[in-house]
Amino acid sequence: MVDPAQLHVRVLGESRIDSPLGALLPAHGTTEHYVDETDRVLLDDTLAMIAARAGAEVPSFEPGGARRRIFFDPSKIKVGIVTCGGICPGLNDVIRGLVLTLNNQYGVSRIIGFRNGYQGMVARHGRGIVELTPTSVEYINEHGGTILGTSRGNQDPDEIVDCLEQLGVNVLFVIGGDGSMRGAQKIAAAVAGRERRIAVVGVPKTIDNDIPFIGQSFGFQTAYAKAAESIRAAHVEAAAQPNGIGLVQLMGRHSGFIASYASLANNDADYVLIPEVPFSLEGFLPYLRHRVLTRGHALVVVAEGAGQDYLEDAPVRLDASGNRKLGDFGVYLRDRILGDFASAGQEVNLKYIDPSYAIRSVPANPYDSVYCLRLAQAAVHAAMAGRTEMVVGQWRGRFVHVPIPLAVSSRNQVDPDGDLWMSVLEATGQPGNFAAATRLIA
Amino acid sequence: MVDPAQLHVRVLGESRIDSPLGALLPAHGTTEHYVDETDRVLLDDTLAMIAARAGAEVPSFEPGGARRRIFFDPSKIKVGIVTCGGICPGLNDVIRGLVLTLNNQYGVSRIIGFRNGYQGMVARHGRGIVELTPTSVEYINEHGGTILGTSRGNQDPDEIVDCLEQLGVNVLFVIGGDGSMRGAQKIAAAVAGRERRIAVVGVPKTIDNDIPFIGQSFGFQTAYAKAAESIRAAHVEAAAQPNGIGLVQLMGRHSGFIASYASLANNDADYVLIPEVPFSLEGFLPYLRHRVLTRGHALVVVAEGAGQDYLEDAPVRLDASGNRKLGDFGVYLRDRILGDFASAGQEVNLKYIDPSYAIRSVPANPYDSVYCLRLAQAAVHAAMAGRTEMVVGQWRGRFVHVPIPLAVSSRNQVDPDGDLWMSVLEATGQPGNFAAATRLIA
Amino acid sequence: MVDPAQLHVRVLGESRIDSPLGALLPAHGTTEHYVDETDRVLLDDTLAMIAARAGAEVPSFEPGGARRRIFFDPSKIKVGIVTCGGICPGLNDVIRGLVLTLNNQYGVSRIIGFRNGYQGMVARHGRGIVELTPTSVEYINEHGGTILGTSRGNQDPDEIVDCLEQLGVNVLFVIGGDGSMRGAQKIAAAVAGRERRIAVVGVPKTIDNDIPFIGQSFGFQTAYAKAAESIRAAHVEAAAQPNGIGLVQLMGRHSGFIASYASLANNDADYVLIPEVPFSLEGFLPYLRHRVLTRGHALVVVAEGAGQDYLEDAPVRLDASGNRKLGDFGVYLRDRILGDFASAGQEVNLKYIDPSYAIRSVPANPYDSVYCLRLAQAAVHAAMAGRTEMVVGQWRGRFVHVPIPLAVSSRNQVDPDGDLWMSVLEATGQPGNFAAATRLIA
Amino acid sequence: MVDPAQLHVRVLGESRIDSPLGALLPAHGTTEHYVDETDRVLLDDTLAMIAARAGAEVPSFEPGGARRRIFFDPSKIKVGIVTCGGICPGLNDVIRGLVLTLNNQYGVSRIIGFRNGYQGMVARHGRGIVELTPTSVEYINEHGGTILGTSRGNQDPDEIVDCLEQLGVNVLFVIGGDGSMRGAQKIAAAVAGRERRIAVVGVPKTIDNDIPFIGQSFGFQTAYAKAAESIRAAHVEAAAQPNGIGLVQLMGRHSGFIASYASLANNDADYVLIPEVPFSLEGFLPYLRHRVLTRGHALVVVAEGAGQDYLEDAPVRLDASGNRKLGDFGVYLRDRILGDFASAGQEVNLKYIDPSYAIRSVPANPYDSVYCLRLAQAAVHAAMAGRTEMVVGQWRGRFVHVPIPLAVSSRNQVDPDGDLWMSVLEATGQPGNFAAATRLIA
Repeated sequence: MVDPAQLHVRVLGESRIDSPLGALLPAHGTTEHYVDETDRVLLDDTLAMIAARAGAEVPSFEPGGARRRIFFDPSKIKVGIVTCGGICPGLNDVIRGLVLTLNNQYGVSRIIGFRNGYQGMVARHGRGIVELTPTSVEYINEHGGTILGTSRGNQDPDEIVDCLEQLGVNVLFVIGGDGSMRGAQKIAAAVAGRERRIAVVGVPKTIDNDIPFIGQSFGFQTAYAKAAESIRAAHVEAAAQPNGIGLVQLMGRHSGFIASYASLANNDADYVLIPEVPFSLEGFLPYLRHRVLTRGHALVVVAEGAGQDYLEDAPVRLDASGNRKLGDFGVYLRDRILGDFASAGQEVNLKYIDPSYAIRSVPANPYDSVYCLRLAQAAVHAAMAGRTEMVVGQWRGRFVHVPIPLAVSSRNQVDPDGDLWMSVLEATGQPGNFAAATRLIA
Repeated sequence: MVDPAQLHVRVLGESRIDSPLGALLPAHGTTEHYVDETDRVLLDDTLAMIAARAGAEVPSFEPGGARRRIFFDPSKIKVGIVTCGGICPGLNDVIRGLVLTLNNQYGVSRIIGFRNGYQGMVARHGRGIVELTPTSVEYINEHGGTILGTSRGNQDPDEIVDCLEQLGVNVLFVIGGDGSMRGAQKIAAAVAGRERRIAVVGVPKTIDNDIPFIGQSFGFQTAYAKAAESIRAAHVEAAAQPNGIGLVQLMGRHSGFIASYASLANNDADYVLIPEVPFSLEGFLPYLRHRVLTRGHALVVVAEGAGQDYLEDAPVRLDASGNRKLGDFGVYLRDRILGDFASAGQEVNLKYIDPSYAIRSVPANPYDSVYCLRLAQAAVHAAMAGRTEMVVGQWRGRFVHVPIPLAVSSRNQVDPDGDLWMSVLEATGQPGNFAAATRLIA
Repeated sequence: MVDPAQLHVRVLGESRIDSPLGALLPAHGTTEHYVDETDRVLLDDTLAMIAARAGAEVPSFEPGGARRRIFFDPSKIKVGIVTCGGICPGLNDVIRGLVLTLNNQYGVSRIIGFRNGYQGMVARHGRGIVELTPTSVEYINEHGGTILGTSRGNQDPDEIVDCLEQLGVNVLFVIGGDGSMRGAQKIAAAVAGRERRIAVVGVPKTIDNDIPFIGQSFGFQTAYAKAAESIRAAHVEAAAQPNGIGLVQLMGRHSGFIASYASLANNDADYVLIPEVPFSLEGFLPYLRHRVLTRGHALVVVAEGAGQDYLEDAPVRLDASGNRKLGDFGVYLRDRILGDFASAGQEVNLKYIDPSYAIRSVPANPYDSVYCLRLAQAAVHAAMAGRTEMVVGQWRGRFVHVPIPLAVSSRNQVDPDGDLWMSVLEATGQPGNFAAATRLIA
Repeated sequence: MVDPAQLHVRVLGESRIDSPLGALLPAHGTTEHYVDETDRVLLDDTLAMIAARAGAEVPSFEPGGARRRIFFDPSKIKVGIVTCGGICPGLNDVIRGLVLTLNNQYGVSRIIGFRNGYQGMVARHGRGIVELTPTSVEYINEHGGTILGTSRGNQDPDEIVDCLEQLGVNVLFVIGGDGSMRGAQKIAAAVAGRERRIAVVGVPKTIDNDIPFIGQSFGFQTAYAKAAESIRAAHVEAAAQPNGIGLVQLMGRHSGFIASYASLANNDADYVLIPEVPFSLEGFLPYLRHRVLTRGHALVVVAEGAGQDYLEDAPVRLDASGNRKLGDFGVYLRDRILGDFASAGQEVNLKYIDPSYAIRSVPANPYDSVYCLRLAQAAVHAAMAGRTEMVVGQWRGRFVHVPIPLAVSSRNQVDPDGDLWMSVLEATGQPGNFAAATRLIA
């Protein structure tokens, strides 16, 4: 249960000047399509919530968007942008959107990018700085990856604030995942400790869509569309051969959104295994064999974070971002399936596909391009209005400001009782419980 | 302002039997990702609405999704499906989703499609009936258009109900636009007049996204992604030549959603003209000439319904659906631009692109495929639960039931004061008011 | 019949220096995959040709490719590049290939591009010059159009040679169509008249594939692949409606290659009408009506240059390149079809699609990207070896040098007796002679 | 050196009847675009070949295409189709082209497909037979894979001829690779041994393009276009990170065509390693480290058959087709690179991509669709004219008949002295000899 206080965003100060965008905001009040600055967006939108909250404060977000009066004087400030963590479709769209909005709408002319994530902000790795202008970013949205480069892991927040101060940066935009947002929170804390007026605003990046309270993460639609191509490829392979099995491992360390949506996209999958929904291989394997026997082929989609309990004996390893490296369940499952068919003396032609790099590196599709641009616009408006230690998101169709502590407090996951997983169960026809189902086929 | 009573959906009767999907619904209550059958979804989700409604009923929708107990006995019913009006990406996905969900989840085995829209249900045009099975719809989602064929215009509701009764159809799914939904409403009324238990459930189709209260219409994302390709083509043409202008007319009779989103997608447009935002050519034309002079080229995107006041002298024409045929503003604008440059003695190379057929006919992209499947699931659940005279939609992320009278009571339009249009103004840099802006460049 | 003398390429002079690429050419002799500099490629490769030529010189081309010894000293020369005429997929690939090969392989560092075609080389339009470097062209192949801009029409050859001399340009690459190649021929003649050592080498551009002796023009495969999408769109529209006709007008002023190949690509077309094969509407129209009556829908593909005899009364108009503007046969045909069905009292739903701009403006597909790069390599090798007044092409799989006078002496057309048109007749099932066929259905 | 006798195709007998296509062939003689039945196509088309052959028979192919008189009576025959070996883009296009040409052009109505390759023709695996009609194949070209299914390995030729005789099949089309063509040769021999009049005609399938004398294999262009996407993905990954290396393993057991063309397509590769061109890792690895050090990242493309001498110690394994299984050089190379950087204490971020399944399973692109259709037309014409024990191909632009013994006598490979490899060296800038090059950087 979210405490309404967790939804309140930090502001650098109370002073304000007129915004150059004021002319575009003649008399906007809250409408179906716009939430006025003085209004808020409900966290939950059911009757049950309203009833439960009768008399108490209702949890709500501050809306995003341009303000009539702003905190920073655009003609005087310098802005920095950094991209952190793994690549994801849309990074260049966000960079481009930030630069164009800052420059064209606010008239901010001094914008720099840091090379290779937080590494580019500290001396040890050698600071790397790139000037960013509307011309230099004109076509970057057509390329995958990030023109700034990226790296994993955080750096010493004090060194980073030293860097910001020495370069005279007033606003830092961090495009990165939950680890990087924790880093941004520490940077904001260090800024606050020095009583500086430097805004730290995040655009949350997670190809797995596992950051909570931001609606859907940018690049996610592009990712599952691309993932659906791999499922189709595996289906074609499996269907072309006697006793074919296609096994596709998709991204999703903690959350099975890509696996779920990609499986719904062309509806070829027979089984979808995700971290949020436990399953037993002892129940699954006989079920799969039965399927191949009766239908001739089968298709299994597995999120990389699924079935980790089967890999418990593997040693704990951490990546540079401090994330625990997962054991490779896809490979483990492949071997278990092959072993199971061998034991049963049943022929099988299994093709295993793990397309992760092919998915991360593509340019954003038109939906994500629009979304990235609008997130970037919202992030610029928030920073110009003096917000800090927050990320932008879209909550039930409205752009909102989400405090970083809230955004890193939990994970967004597929709700096993929610309507998405229900759609997957309906579409695949897979049983909710393999062990129970297996008894039926025995 | 919507009256809460308008949001209540008609039900065929109160009797219920256990649903075959009950096992998948162990103990679902309202969560962030699911709205229980006993809860409702708020129409508006701002604090302002809650405050305004203090003490009064809050407008809310009935949630979509599988019910534990249903109205129809799946083993006994026969289901009909019809597609009406212009084609749109995703029609075959919806047909496929209806058939698969009816057959695989509920065990309904008697499903038929009517050929060529409502025409296929009446004797005058010759009834056309196709058996629909999981096998016959297996790959249809990879094709654009509709395998059932379609036609414009409604037919006599009594003849249609005769057809349903003679064939023993218990549930009719209508996939069509607002005109077809008005037709469906009349069919439901005729059914009610005869006191029959035939459910009429709609899946609203509008490539323009102009049906209200359903969130976003299926096929719309595919459509604006495809439209963005035309904008890119026009940009390439315009930029390759001295004094190039690209002029792209996109679909949008009453609503500029495709024009707005497609323009944001690759952000090449300099001007976007939509029906919802008035403009004066007298202000626009000098502004455009100035742009070509200073920048070398320009790109104009216009929704087909824009600028109709300039075509008032054209005679009124109706299409077969009874929609007033719009004058062709794109062609008019092309001629006005050419005339204006000629009068000013300024060279111009204008390329005019109207890609509408190329957009309507493509298969759904993965997002829309998922969305169509889930709309189809929701429509089946609603019909099996005895709902009628309603359409399915997704309201702020939740699948909901929308009474047809409400869905045809108004149009969904781009709010000139909303955040979408604000994003367009920010991204293009076009002035809110060309006349005022022109004075600045004079 | 081609005179062997027509196949001999002009050379600027006989002096030679060692090529920096010599090390890559250890001991190449003619093989199945390579033609040595001392060998030639046969124009025709049939036994009949050999027999006919017994004792006479056999027509053959000079092979393309790197030479061991070259004419120009790469460290001293300056190179100019110009793109002329309409845009076509692959222009940026060719520019990029020229720059990379000149710079990386030969060490030429002074490369310039002229803006907006020949206009950018003469004072009257204002010379426009762009420095071209490996960095500036790194990603341009991902964009359609031409980064240099283009224009139609030739300019005074003497002014152009003045420009080349004043700028110290030693090699001019012209990427353009037959009109531009005639311009290049005049430039080469003016250079020769002044006894200068300036090479003029062309990369022939024609989206219609109508330049002879070059195999297939770059961008052509991309073009017909894109055109096939429009045919598919028209098919989907036509098949979705009662009595639907899809009518697609494709590029092809004098040659029906795009119409023929695109129609074969997904094999939806029922009739293909091209300039090379005469037909009578009086025979065609009843045949089409019969088809719609019996099959329910039909698809007609027409090349823009077809049926011009039906438009003879239209006044003669020339475009800026001096090409006679064609009458718009697609629109004429649409009206004739509508009139014919109206006279016959037969319902028809006709959708007319003319996708030309959408086809010209796309980036090259991978095949064309490879081909453009290799053409650019061949053009650079030819120029460095002192060839002039020639274009590069690929003849039966080998890169060859084609003298400009030969390349502009005729048009490449679909041979009505050749195997391509035979494939179209087989695939569509259309009669060779509509009048005769019509008698059969009467 | 090919003996002219090797180019002569077997014919079932000399009797002939009039062809139903005769009307489409009024007076075709050899032209630039068509080779008459009485003429032949030269194997080699250089002056050197003519000179070398003075007085001797010149090696030449029999041309493909419709004949005026044919061997089989279309109204009486039954035709079988089988697809063998791994899947490849275009299989369904070929099946569809065979069925449509047989049915629509010749009026053959009895056409069957065998399920799962040669397995479907023998009792041990259970014969699998599918009726094929124009309706059943209408849209199959939009799907990857093969609707007939496939399997590896040959079956007893006598059992297969038993099957053909029992079913009354007069013509067998085999779509498969060199192993399957050897199988077809044995089937033809068994047919001849029994003195039956059953034609066995192949459409050669090899995604690697390694079958000789057929020009380019179908699906190859689609394959390298798809492979180019993986190279782009690896480039984006490598460039986004400090010290990034992208390593892409592409198909190509014996021939580096896919690796070569895909690398040229977007020209991102720094090194291309193929089976035909030996290299030493001892030379390559220091060169690669130097590149990463100086440029920040690098991209390596390797064909799966490259570097097999480094894997000699691995045990010999055969697949079901009897092909020797290659050791996995891509994985070996990845480990060697990682080891080399580790020894040198140099940081590296290596991403390894092996996209083979994603490439094999896609539908054919428009070029390959056209090519598959035309190959199918040529195969049907050949069979109807009584040819047997041959495959169809396209030699220097002309469709030709190639005897199976010749087609399986050698492999088509990238000629290290040919112009394709020269283009790769020019485009990548990689040295011809890494050891020599390494000395330069030391």
